This record gives sequence, structure tokens and C-alpha cells, in this order.
Amino acid sequence: MIAPVPIGRREQRRNELRRALQEAAWHLVADRGYDALTVDDIATAAGTSIATFYRNFSGKEAVLTRRWLSPERLVALAPHIDRRHGLAGVVSSLFQTYGRLANEYSVGLMMRLKVINQNPGLQLAMNRGRAEDEYTLAQLFAEVTGQPADSLALRLAASLTIAARATTMAHWAELNDHPPLTRLLDETAEVLAPSLAACEDIGALAQAKRDDRAS
Amino acid sequence: MIAPVPIGRREQRRNELRRALQEAAWHLVADRGYDALTVDDIATAAGTSIATFYRNFSGKEAVLTRRWLSPERLVALAPHIDRRHGLAGVVSSLFQTYGRLANEYSVGLMMRLKVINQNPGLQLAMNRGRAEDEYTLAQLFAEVTGQPADSLALRLAASLTIAARATTMAHWAELNDHPPLTRLLDETAEVLAPSLAACEDIGALAQAKRDDRAS
Repeated sequence: MIAPVPIGRREQRRNELRRALQEAAWHLVADRGYDALTVDDIATAAGTSIATFYRNFSGKEAVLTRRWLSPERLVALAPHIDRRHGLAGVVSSLFQTYGRLANEYSVGLMMRLKVINQNPGLQLAMNRGRAEDEYTLAQLFAEVTGQPADSLALRLAASLTIAARATTMAHWAELNDHPPLTRLLDETAEVLAPSLAACEDIGALAQAKRDDRAS
Repeated sequence: MIAPVPIGRREQRRNELRRALQEAAWHLVADRGYDALTVDDIATAAGTSIATFYRNFSGKEAVLTRRWLSPERLVALAPHIDRRHGLAGVVSSLFQTYGRLANEYSVGLMMRLKVINQNPGLQLAMNRGRAEDEYTLAQLFAEVTGQPADSLALRLAASLTIAARATTMAHWAELNDHPPLTRLLDETAEVLAPSLAACEDIGALAQAKRDDRAS
């Protein structure tokens, strides 16, 4: 089950710690630039140890390239997921909630995207995160539809969603926030809706065939 | 204009050379593995020099990770592109033609995908190629629709198509060619069609608004 609500206190503390390390890292990048950043500095700024840092992130690339659907992000998104209108409902509600949350960053999302675009190491980490996000999203889709997460239908639905979101974010950063991210994400969710419905339909058809053969 | 037909003799020779280097590189990987591969060996096997190799590819990663829409591939695909049924027609015809061409490889596509999955350097090169493919595809879409290639509508259409193709290829390789690639790609083109039509519609709407303001 993705992001059970309510979560335990230990998991909540872990999420807060991860969030604090990420914010500290971005504040340091904003102050001194990416090249001067060390894991030691990040841990100190977040009031914790290097060992604790490495229990949570594999290095400075990883702490700066938060996945869209990281465990701590999913906890924030989960209560707002629309599970009653198929895959299109899930994606539209995820995009809307994310758009609202993105406004709360203390170091601007725009600056983050620009730093990431300038550093190949960060881009590699982002791409790895993208693959993990596809997996997480396919699991969530499986939960909502009852179809298998490793079916072509749900894998396609997940990769379309992740690609569409990445393109929308890049476009928004290039346009310097006009139109605002929330409006662009709404438009993208609308564009995605019919293909997500098509994925759901071919998935249901494949499922029915498997059930037929089993009975 | 993408892939003018007919192309000049010099361009044709260049495409043949690139193809020969790629085939030579994959034969060497099949024989000796990826780690033992050198640019020197590839150039020798293709009957050319190291200097000529580097005029065509940046290194062994680049020669092994052919882009889907590389210049030489586009020349082969161009005559088969359906330009009369919107973006969905373009994508469906590209997928069909590519599926047929993929059967002609002398070193199996399946083996190639598996080698790439095992090597982080090749994966990075693949991701770079994916970004270039998105750009090339948006240009082709612009040619067919008359809309700007850098609009959100066409960028989305391109990134959805590239993502869907990559996911379909990965799924096919994991299933060991059952069902065959051509059938999976047809299914994927059908799933994509309605969202590509939606991209075209919002793009046309944005275009009409710009024309209104200009007049």
C-alpha cells in the first residue's frame, strides 16, 4: 500500500530529517554555489552527523535531486489523491496538489531547476529518480485499478505521466513562471487524460482475458 | 525541413559509414564484451581511421547508443511518414516503419538493450540521445502542423512519444519478444493517439490566439 495514512512517528521524524537535509543543501548551493558544497557542511547545517546523512542519501547529488514521488512527498500528496475517477483522476489530483506545494519552497524551484540543468552529475541523478518515480507511480496505479503494476498498460501510463510532468516543469522554468506552474500542470493533466483512459481500457481487457483463461 | 528526400551522395556515404561503425562496434561487443572495446578496434573493424571515427562519434558510448531519430535513421523513416493524419498519423507510421527495420539488425536488438542496461555510461548516453530525439521529433511535428516546435503542445507531444517508445522497448526486451515488437508498438501508438490529438488541439488554439493578437 502506497503511503498509508496516518504514518508512524518514527517515519514522520525520518521524513522531517530528509526534508531538513534537502533544504539545508539548497540553501548552501544558493549561498556558495554547487561546486563548493560538501556533505559535511550539509550535515552540520541541518544539525546532524555525516553518518546520518549517508543513511538517508547516497551523496550531494542525491540530496539535491529530490524525486517527484519520494516517500516523504507521497505522504504529503496521499490524502489529496482522487481515487474515484480512474488514472486520469489520480494524475490530475497529483499535479494539482504538487503545484500548490511547489509554491512553499524556501529556495525557489526555478533556481533549483537551473542549477540542475548546469550539472551533468545532477542530471544523471535526476534521470535515476525519474525511473524510480515511474515504478512508484505504476504501483499507485495498480492499487487504484487492481491491474498488475508490471503490465505494459500501467507502465505506459506511468512513463507518460512522468515525461509530461518533466516537460511541463522545463517549459515553465524557461518561461520564468508565466503562465504559472499550476495552470500549465492543469493543461498537461487534460492532455494526458484520454491516453491514461486508453491505458486503463487495454489493461482491463488484458486482465479479463487472463481471468477467462484461469477459469 | 527534416530529412529531405532524395539526399546527396556525400550525406549518403556519411550515413553508410556511421552505420558501418555502429555495426562493427556491436559485433565487437558481442564477441569480447563491452569493457574490452576500444575506439581503435572499432575503426579498424570498419576499415577506417580513429580520426574518422571521432568526426562521427564522441566515443564508444555514443557509437553504441544510436538515437531512435538519428539523422541516418530519419533518412530511412522519412519516405514512410504519414503526414496527412495529424500527429497520431506521424507517430503511428514512425512506429510501424521502425518496428520493421528493427528486425534487420545483424546483432540482435534484445542483446543490445541488455548490454545498455548493464552499463551506467551507456545509460547516460541513451538519456542524452533521448533529449535530442525529443527535439528532433518536435521539429518534425512543427513541420506537419505549422505550429511552433518550442510550444508546450508540441514539446509534450514529443516527450510523450519518446517516453512511450522507450517503455515499450524495455517491456518487449523483458518479455523476450513475445508478443513481437511490431504488435506492442501498434498498441502503444493507439494509446498515444488521443493525447497527441489533444496536444494538436491546444496548440492550434494557442496559435489562433496569437494570430488574433497580431491582426
